[in-house]
Amino acid sequence: MSSHYEKTKAQRSSYPFFLSYRTRWSDNDQYSHVNNSIYYHLFDSVVNAYLLQQCELSSHSAQIGLVVSSHCQFFSPVSFPQVLDLGLRVVKLGTSSVTYEVAVFEQGRDVPAAVGGYTHVFVERASRKSEPMAAALREGLLRLLSVKESLESKL
Amino acid sequence: MSSHYEKTKAQRSSYPFFLSYRTRWSDNDQYSHVNNSIYYHLFDSVVNAYLLQQCELSSHSAQIGLVVSSHCQFFSPVSFPQVLDLGLRVVKLGTSSVTYEVAVFEQGRDVPAAVGGYTHVFVERASRKSEPMAAALREGLLRLLSVKESLESKL
Amino acid sequence: MSSHYEKTKAQRSSYPFFLSYRTRWSDNDQYSHVNNSIYYHLFDSVVNAYLLQQCELSSHSAQIGLVVSSHCQFFSPVSFPQVLDLGLRVVKLGTSSVTYEVAVFEQGRDVPAAVGGYTHVFVERASRKSEPMAAALREGLLRLLSVKESLESKL
Amino acid sequence: MSSHYEKTKAQRSSYPFFLSYRTRWSDNDQYSHVNNSIYYHLFDSVVNAYLLQQCELSSHSAQIGLVVSSHCQFFSPVSFPQVLDLGLRVVKLGTSSVTYEVAVFEQGRDVPAAVGGYTHVFVERASRKSEPMAAALREGLLRLLSVKESLESKL
Repeated sequence: MSSHYEKTKAQRSSYPFFLSYRTRWSDNDQYSHVNNSIYYHLFDSVVNAYLLQQCELSSHSAQIGLVVSSHCQFFSPVSFPQVLDLGLRVVKLGTSSVTYEVAVFEQGRDVPAAVGGYTHVFVERASRKSEPMAAALREGLLRLLSVKESLESKL
Repeated sequence: MSSHYEKTKAQRSSYPFFLSYRTRWSDNDQYSHVNNSIYYHLFDSVVNAYLLQQCELSSHSAQIGLVVSSHCQFFSPVSFPQVLDLGLRVVKLGTSSVTYEVAVFEQGRDVPAAVGGYTHVFVERASRKSEPMAAALREGLLRLLSVKESLESKL
Repeated sequence: MSSHYEKTKAQRSSYPFFLSYRTRWSDNDQYSHVNNSIYYHLFDSVVNAYLLQQCELSSHSAQIGLVVSSHCQFFSPVSFPQVLDLGLRVVKLGTSSVTYEVAVFEQGRDVPAAVGGYTHVFVERASRKSEPMAAALREGLLRLLSVKESLESKL
Repeated sequence: MSSHYEKTKAQRSSYPFFLSYRTRWSDNDQYSHVNNSIYYHLFDSVVNAYLLQQCELSSHSAQIGLVVSSHCQFFSPVSFPQVLDLGLRVVKLGTSSVTYEVAVFEQGRDVPAAVGGYTHVFVERASRKSEPMAAALREGLLRLLSVKESLESKL
């Protein structure tokens, strides 16, 4: 995965899981657009919603995912009170770690306003030591892995 | 308006305007429920969405609303990834100020998880001096004022 | 305790515990001042810092404090990148609950920009049932209770 | 600049500008550590504080900086109520853009808990078109540019 996205290549059809988020008044900073930090709050939200709803993660799971690196590219501003569609896919799936890509679309638009993502390392909740991810978790994440990326990630 | 709500009296039908907000991962604090401060972010969001969409407010309006006091009562916890329905009404409408009440409902429930609100004083954008609210603004807010409260607010 | 403060009565000397908080860029909303919701984040911060540092609370304590109601009055705006001094006192101390008052001062000023607070009910961490607060906790909170308020709270 | 940092190479002495930030209760997410998104709020804060205090930027400047990409690597967790020292330097300085690097240190520690940064493109406030940065701004940013990076940025 390159760290630089080509804006026009990130299409809605590339992302198998979507959730819509209503922006909040305080998401806008004093430049009257959604502050860059807010995108990361949204990334965390769509990822963890998927883990809870599709991968048998719960608030008492033995494993939790810790973010070890994150990044985002911002193509065009968005503003409260817009509703944003967040598309999620997996671009790299390892034994104990996964790298997500998230695209942020304004409603009704096919070109993303921003694309970013982060890498989760799964750890045992109490010790915070990394360990191979649970089977149900891995299966859920596999469903978000595109064929093209799947091949790439084996290289 | 009493500052103490009776939980069972705040029903969905009391609120003429509703918006749904998806909670975010970071809304939960370390007690695994939505932090008390987040409710105020949501109050601000539903109020300002209404002002922008129903009262001809814009990001360049001559008047802006400044919050002079706010309050909330918390009846039961809510948690990410729940979707919350926010009901809005006006409980007091003056010449240059308005007091909103906002009720937070979990989806599918009729008893609110929290009820609060705040008072906006409208001011001229640059000088920040209070002034009578614009006609379109007042008309929009009147539509959120219940009959019962309307009478009370004249006392 | 009245829910309406007299701005000029809240002096720095009324608050036995202080912490300073540097504002953050995103605290400012699109009106270029610290958003009203942010004050509640700061209230939570000074209260919990006191509980952790002076009342033997820890991230594994058997008891946790849940906020049941909160409120704030805003007298004058503050803006990033100001540093804010937060003064904390206890205005009501019960068996299982405590009501804090927090005043927000700009550095170098003696009149607060805002005064508010909230009520904590202490509960057993797992069951979330209220119970009398632990002795060390109560002692720590007693040290923040002013004589005048102490008498009032007995009435 | 590589997008992957070597943790041990980011020393306090590499960063010419520092500000300390007190963490807030709600910075901790339900895993009881500061949420990954919060680091970006802090990046924005130290950068904009520097621009306002050392580069003649003001809330009415003709130019504003828009974030076009950001990234962070997280080496070890931090938690409320810690105070964090944020070190800032410039790693690339162009005609209309600048790339900052920010390191997050726990107080008393010389190895960072996280290192990240972002790129600002300066634009005319109203049109949002990029333009060469003002002289005072560029001079202020030059003072944060290390010699080694300065040479690299000329290549």
